[in-house]
Amino acid sequence: MKKIILVACTLFSIGAANSQSLNSPNGELEMQFSLNESGAPIYSLSYAEKSIIEPSSLGLDLKNQEDLLENFTVAGIEETSYDETWEPVWGEQKEIRNHYNEMEVKLLQEETNREMIIRFRLFDDGLGFRYEFSQQKNLGHFVIANEKTEFAMTGDHTAFWIPGDYDTQEYDYTESKLSEIRGLMENSITANVSQTSFSPTGVQTSLMLKTDDGLYINLHEAALVNYPVMHLNLDDEKFVFESWLTPNLEGDKAYMIAPSTTPWRTIIVSDDAREILASKMTYNLNEPSEIEDTSWIKPMKYVGVWWEMITGKSTWSYTHDFTAVQLGETDYETATPNSTHGATTEHVKDYIDFASEHGFDGVLVEGWNIGWEDWFGHSKDYVFDFVTPYPDFDVEEIQEYAENKNVKMIMHHETSSSVRNYERHLDTAYQFMKKYGYDAVKSGYVGDILPRGENHYSQWLVNHYLYAVQKAADYEIMVNAHEAARPTGLARTWPNLIANESARGTEYQAFGGSKPNHVTVLPFTRQIGGPMDYTPGIFEMDISKLNPENTSHVNSTIANQLALYVTMYSPLQMAADLPVNYNRFSDAFQFIKDVALDWDESIYLEAEPGDYVTVARKEKGDDNWFVGNVNGEETRTSKIKFDFLDPNKTYIATIYSDSKDAHFRNNPQAYEIRKVRVTNKSSLSQTSAPGGGYAISVVPVEKSETRGLKKL
Amino acid sequence: MKKIILVACTLFSIGAANSQSLNSPNGELEMQFSLNESGAPIYSLSYAEKSIIEPSSLGLDLKNQEDLLENFTVAGIEETSYDETWEPVWGEQKEIRNHYNEMEVKLLQEETNREMIIRFRLFDDGLGFRYEFSQQKNLGHFVIANEKTEFAMTGDHTAFWIPGDYDTQEYDYTESKLSEIRGLMENSITANVSQTSFSPTGVQTSLMLKTDDGLYINLHEAALVNYPVMHLNLDDEKFVFESWLTPNLEGDKAYMIAPSTTPWRTIIVSDDAREILASKMTYNLNEPSEIEDTSWIKPMKYVGVWWEMITGKSTWSYTHDFTAVQLGETDYETATPNSTHGATTEHVKDYIDFASEHGFDGVLVEGWNIGWEDWFGHSKDYVFDFVTPYPDFDVEEIQEYAENKNVKMIMHHETSSSVRNYERHLDTAYQFMKKYGYDAVKSGYVGDILPRGENHYSQWLVNHYLYAVQKAADYEIMVNAHEAARPTGLARTWPNLIANESARGTEYQAFGGSKPNHVTVLPFTRQIGGPMDYTPGIFEMDISKLNPENTSHVNSTIANQLALYVTMYSPLQMAADLPVNYNRFSDAFQFIKDVALDWDESIYLEAEPGDYVTVARKEKGDDNWFVGNVNGEETRTSKIKFDFLDPNKTYIATIYSDSKDAHFRNNPQAYEIRKVRVTNKSSLSQTSAPGGGYAISVVPVEKSETRGLKKL
Repeated sequence: MKKIILVACTLFSIGAANSQSLNSPNGELEMQFSLNESGAPIYSLSYAEKSIIEPSSLGLDLKNQEDLLENFTVAGIEETSYDETWEPVWGEQKEIRNHYNEMEVKLLQEETNREMIIRFRLFDDGLGFRYEFSQQKNLGHFVIANEKTEFAMTGDHTAFWIPGDYDTQEYDYTESKLSEIRGLMENSITANVSQTSFSPTGVQTSLMLKTDDGLYINLHEAALVNYPVMHLNLDDEKFVFESWLTPNLEGDKAYMIAPSTTPWRTIIVSDDAREILASKMTYNLNEPSEIEDTSWIKPMKYVGVWWEMITGKSTWSYTHDFTAVQLGETDYETATPNSTHGATTEHVKDYIDFASEHGFDGVLVEGWNIGWEDWFGHSKDYVFDFVTPYPDFDVEEIQEYAENKNVKMIMHHETSSSVRNYERHLDTAYQFMKKYGYDAVKSGYVGDILPRGENHYSQWLVNHYLYAVQKAADYEIMVNAHEAARPTGLARTWPNLIANESARGTEYQAFGGSKPNHVTVLPFTRQIGGPMDYTPGIFEMDISKLNPENTSHVNSTIANQLALYVTMYSPLQMAADLPVNYNRFSDAFQFIKDVALDWDESIYLEAEPGDYVTVARKEKGDDNWFVGNVNGEETRTSKIKFDFLDPNKTYIATIYSDSKDAHFRNNPQAYEIRKVRVTNKSSLSQTSAPGGGYAISVVPVEKSETRGLKKL
Repeated sequence: MKKIILVACTLFSIGAANSQSLNSPNGELEMQFSLNESGAPIYSLSYAEKSIIEPSSLGLDLKNQEDLLENFTVAGIEETSYDETWEPVWGEQKEIRNHYNEMEVKLLQEETNREMIIRFRLFDDGLGFRYEFSQQKNLGHFVIANEKTEFAMTGDHTAFWIPGDYDTQEYDYTESKLSEIRGLMENSITANVSQTSFSPTGVQTSLMLKTDDGLYINLHEAALVNYPVMHLNLDDEKFVFESWLTPNLEGDKAYMIAPSTTPWRTIIVSDDAREILASKMTYNLNEPSEIEDTSWIKPMKYVGVWWEMITGKSTWSYTHDFTAVQLGETDYETATPNSTHGATTEHVKDYIDFASEHGFDGVLVEGWNIGWEDWFGHSKDYVFDFVTPYPDFDVEEIQEYAENKNVKMIMHHETSSSVRNYERHLDTAYQFMKKYGYDAVKSGYVGDILPRGENHYSQWLVNHYLYAVQKAADYEIMVNAHEAARPTGLARTWPNLIANESARGTEYQAFGGSKPNHVTVLPFTRQIGGPMDYTPGIFEMDISKLNPENTSHVNSTIANQLALYVTMYSPLQMAADLPVNYNRFSDAFQFIKDVALDWDESIYLEAEPGDYVTVARKEKGDDNWFVGNVNGEETRTSKIKFDFLDPNKTYIATIYSDSKDAHFRNNPQAYEIRKVRVTNKSSLSQTSAPGGGYAISVVPVEKSETRGLKKL
């Protein structure tokens, strides 16, 4: 189904009083556009006749040029409708409908004879709009000093926010009224190895909001290409957010060349929190895949030599011999091993054995390549070469071993944010991967950016992250970029970007812990733009058991950890804990082994940001369903119906749930597993502990196989 | 001949009063080293018992670490001698003797338990020294905040200087007393498209000095690798220069990792200006060639589509259609040609014809690739792709045509200082060159550096320039880098770096003109570090003849232009003017056709910075000699002897000289050509006009062939 309906209605002048309205396909959303008395573009948005965005200004401050803010007249307005259905390479559902009404507003600034287009797309689930600059005589190169896009809220909503920052996205979320952000900001800015905050009311997108009358609003962006990451800065007297772009060292935001466009600014709206999670608007606002043959892009479930370094049980580095390392000069062959190096050939083989035995697709190994002795905090340019292994890591032997066990090795490229160095080595590094059979790379950008003065989310770096993904596509390599700019649906265009970190991941559970309700917020925020490599599956919550010097505690129950494989959608899923811990809880581990990675359908059953998320997903090309529930800090009983199941089938559901006395802090390993018979008439009332949850696998069977099983 | 004499004399303690001395092989130079009462290293230098450098401090300010300036004790001193003779791939002479006495001073800073070595090499022609940092526990990564190397002058010497600047080297030289620098600075800083001056007494190296009692001193550096370019800042009350490194945007100078060394600081000394020009100390302080097979590195004489753009007669750009260009988006195929584009297939073929007819090796073409419409001044990242020609430049057709005419095309890579973009395209660009038979590239770095905040001469860029040369070597490509850091003898190590611009070249003669004595200074300054692509050979001095809107005048006579092919040593020599002008003066042009590019021997016959340089060179592997004289602003009669000629041979000398009434301004095209018989008993008294000079080719002949010729 693909149809485009053109409804060209060109209006050549609308005055201050005359506004032009656009409705969503189902009529629930209405966008109003007008020019005010200064000739400034203004928009507003309502949902079911309730105001969502009060009249808000649009426009851009330019550097050393007349601004694109005021003195506009409308040169033309065109409305079109669009309706298509497309199939993502991987995703939460097999097909995605892209259905919207569009208004293209052509604005003319007569004084300067420059044209700016604002393009609005109104979907049933929200509004996207962007600025466009056609090829024209008086607008060629221009520098955006500030983007002045406003989002005027209707009141003092509740927000789920992290501090605005040019260099990190890895903060815990704070839930508060908008008016409380300023007072809570200081405590929300926790230490990070690279961080640059900018305003006491500056927050990051995707920002999740809830109004007092039960409306859910999500602000983010889509298709962030060659433009800085947008933050939002709040005027906390008027409750107006303004776009706040990540600057470069000179304070400039974006170097633009017409013809071009900005990313889309997105407002997802519903009175049902589940609809926010189900929205595919962010992907829809991105361009179709640039990769024609996507057959080499495959979801992966993996284990890795990683959590043991994160917890401090073992090390990325090989030796204590060197105060500083000069790649190519430092002699590792004669260095004394430190005896804690994780990425040894023998140890990696153990992981390969484990992966093979339990049906994992891949093994990630960090700390395999030389340079980890001084990789961090030295503003070091030539920090890694991405191709030279430590003496105790035999690339060829490992590759052969993995191949024989039908396991794929996953490459690791930590750049230490030395971006020039990474780009210099990118071809060689990717070629090395192809030579040794690695199809996917986890890349990282820890620490302050080189070139100095640039930020993780400035235009320069946004340009780089996509460059690395595009170049990877040339080599048919999948990318999982950590610390890169938060995703904005670009995986539609570049589906080899199979995941990002770009938020506070599981690693923080070994760095002092995250809030127990963190995973009930992430789907409403970080995951709006794309999948997260959250690395769940931690079974041992007491980190001192791995490393006596680390007293961190994982604020989660085992059942919660299992549920994450369903609630945190990603085509790349890690089982992050050590094999020894999986062997201790092999019955619970069974769920991680069973859970699917790719889906025909996803149904959000329950959702409330900060409190709970429950989702059911149907395995791609199969009749299995998997259900996950993650719960916040309060004990809660989830009630779900299985009416999504095939009415003609009988299923066995294996329910992995918290024990009665489970608790993320005191009793995280208390879980129960039961098998029951379910049909599409079944319903479940299941209690989840604080920081807990449940996971269910639902497998169709012959009725006879359910004999003796209790019916749900 | 290669011998190393080790004279280890280890002294474990020298106090403030005890200094250690080192003599040059011939005993004329003496260097004294000591520690002062604060434990700071001090050196001084004398020549023939005259003080050259008064006691001067050495050391480094570090950032966030105890400085490496004071509190040192001497842990050991080792003296060695070295004597070898090596053959450069190309050069002024066939063999170079590298003969020095060395003192390695091992300094221990007991408080911090750190070691720093100062290595002195004393040659007969000067002193080189550098700082070295061995691998050690307490010195790994460190940041140089300031290098505090002093050069304390003995008085108010005369200097030939250009303003210190982080972004340009293209100033005219000023001759003045040291005490006059401050007052003359403002006027010396002429406009440039990228420039960052830093001090009213800051000057660039290589700095040429002359004392009142007739000693010549040259201060520069050798082997600049991964370290910022050094300037000199003058304390004009004490006449002490201090090293002033080019900072990055954070004010940091160099990010260092032990083990490592700084570049060499060099002081060339003589009482004879000719010896300064003849010195090979700068090369000797560089490492031997890293390129094993150098057979592909070949001197080249070339013409090019260039001067017509420099003068404004034609353009690099193809069209006026676009306010801004987006590579890959902008459609050149349908654009309207501007009718002034220089690099058209037909026009290039004319140059190929001309090159072929007159025996030139190569043709350079600028403006052949898309992007020149907005290449400059827009801080544009993706400015060129280095592989896509304009619609009217047919790469294959031109290549085939050139090949048939036995002419090599020379590639042009203007980076517009968008360095990340260049590095991203470097492999592709070099591969494109190899595919189409280009063996050499002229690269350029016009405008402010991207990444923003970096300077042309900061460590980041110094690292880049060498990276581009090293990568070129992998492809067997020769590099002629313009606007890159001034050379420091690195061509010994990377002989594919066949030239640099890195000073005020001939182009400025079309931008308002250079001082008429400019070319009598350059050999003493810019050329100390390596050859310059000066692009001489301008025969039409009235630029308005080429472009009526350009009233610039070339401050030089035709005879002076010819002499430059001898006085401005370079293995890469351009005949820069238009073919039409060479056809007008084909008798003078003959010298450019005849002159050699590579030499067995060079003899500086006369030299005085700012006034004149006369040199005789013997063609490599042949018995031809070429003599060049360039003259300053005063009429002068040069007197030279031909005693360098083979006593058993007779030669015909063709003398291209200024006519009596020639003058760089009023009468620049007045020249005379005469043929005479010369032997090694001959001598010449030849008057050169203001801004004039003479050029002589000396060709051995059978005596009979000289019949009728006047004997010189």
